[in-house]
Amino acid sequence: MLSSAQVKQLKSLHQKKFRRLENKFILEGYRLIDQALSAKSEIDEIWITKKSKDSPFWGQLLPKIENQNISWSIAPNKIIHQISDSLNDQGIIALASIPTYKKYNQSPKQSIYLDGVSDPGNMGTILRTAAWFGIKSVFRSPDCVDPFNSKVVRSAMGAHFYFSHFEAIIEENLLAELKKAGTKILGSKMKGQSIHTLDMSDSDGWCLILGSESHGISESAGNFITNTITIPGTKGMESLNVSVAGGILLHALTSLEVVTN
Amino acid sequence: MLSSAQVKQLKSLHQKKFRRLENKFILEGYRLIDQALSAKSEIDEIWITKKSKDSPFWGQLLPKIENQNISWSIAPNKIIHQISDSLNDQGIIALASIPTYKKYNQSPKQSIYLDGVSDPGNMGTILRTAAWFGIKSVFRSPDCVDPFNSKVVRSAMGAHFYFSHFEAIIEENLLAELKKAGTKILGSKMKGQSIHTLDMSDSDGWCLILGSESHGISESAGNFITNTITIPGTKGMESLNVSVAGGILLHALTSLEVVTN
Repeated sequence: MLSSAQVKQLKSLHQKKFRRLENKFILEGYRLIDQALSAKSEIDEIWITKKSKDSPFWGQLLPKIENQNISWSIAPNKIIHQISDSLNDQGIIALASIPTYKKYNQSPKQSIYLDGVSDPGNMGTILRTAAWFGIKSVFRSPDCVDPFNSKVVRSAMGAHFYFSHFEAIIEENLLAELKKAGTKILGSKMKGQSIHTLDMSDSDGWCLILGSESHGISESAGNFITNTITIPGTKGMESLNVSVAGGILLHALTSLEVVTN
Repeated sequence: MLSSAQVKQLKSLHQKKFRRLENKFILEGYRLIDQALSAKSEIDEIWITKKSKDSPFWGQLLPKIENQNISWSIAPNKIIHQISDSLNDQGIIALASIPTYKKYNQSPKQSIYLDGVSDPGNMGTILRTAAWFGIKSVFRSPDCVDPFNSKVVRSAMGAHFYFSHFEAIIEENLLAELKKAGTKILGSKMKGQSIHTLDMSDSDGWCLILGSESHGISESAGNFITNTITIPGTKGMESLNVSVAGGILLHALTSLEVVTN
């Protein structure tokens, strides 16, 4: 059963300050909870509606939940819907601990630096894409949207449980260090080297900066760029959405790795 | 000046049936109106707030507006904000005619078929990406979200003015015809040929199907696929967002064209 104190606690987790204070966040929907279970992430408790309990997805989740000794209970539709931030909630939520990530110490071979990404949908989609392409180190400037915000968590589809590094860090503390270590700092702009001709074979890894949707890469982060790259396209068109550009660049970079290694 | 009848008309255009009835839609923001002006698209009238008139962007738009004899006037913040569907409106809106597109007759060399794409953000992002990669023929199943919906229009960033073909058409009437004409029908699934090894050199063009976010490609459209393709990624991860997958595939396909032509 969900007590009214618990409902209040869960609702409070829609605010960043309470997420940080309690080091908890909410997972909504089967897929996300399944990804957390597969990653053996720390889940405190799961609540599901009577109706959702009949779903075949629940049948798939239940053995994993029991196996990991996670407590679960039935909760009324109305309550789940109130706690859920999604209009089309699936009638299942979980309270989970924010995973523990490694602190930045030595330079990862492949990483991303999110510089002022403010749209939760874009942030979530970039995280999902990064995980798909096997990038385990994702850093962000402190002015990015909080990645434990429910909308980010929903669009990231479990990527949060995949990363080793996942840290808010100012560019001076990250990009300067990476550059010193011989890592190429890549930034995408309208005018730059076409990614078709990019060659990473002489580098000690790379870090891709993805900038904010409205302002692009900030000057302070841009100063560290060693290779300005571009995705060639139609003249006069409005470039690409940051998550699409990120996807194309990560795909190109990880394919390059395959070719050059 | 905006009469109350005009305000009512403009607000009604947030509903699909009124957009179809009047064959009009609303453009919000400088960039979008600029793209429409550059495409010489039919704009009935523009309204701007006093404050936005001081923006340097307005200074850039004004000569084009005057050159095309489009009438414009000042409107109160409150009214523009009421009509605008965006929370962060830029204080400028335009009433425009839905562009006239060619009907499908002969098979385009490169095209996209959107199959049940229901999220306005995804639809808009795919359109923006298609325009960036020079795809002029974009078809959609009738159950897709209406592409003249304000959220789609905002995310598409002017792509609506770039296309030659832009039509709702059932798969039997399009994909069957394209297939007969020798066009490769490409569909992305988890298991398929890696796009790294794709070769389009023996084909009379291609049509890429992009499916719905929740259900993927429908069975009825899937039946026409000649080449099942895949973007290799991390095992156990939740695939890619449809607009990101679309971006990577379009980038790969249009780069292939460069190589093979």
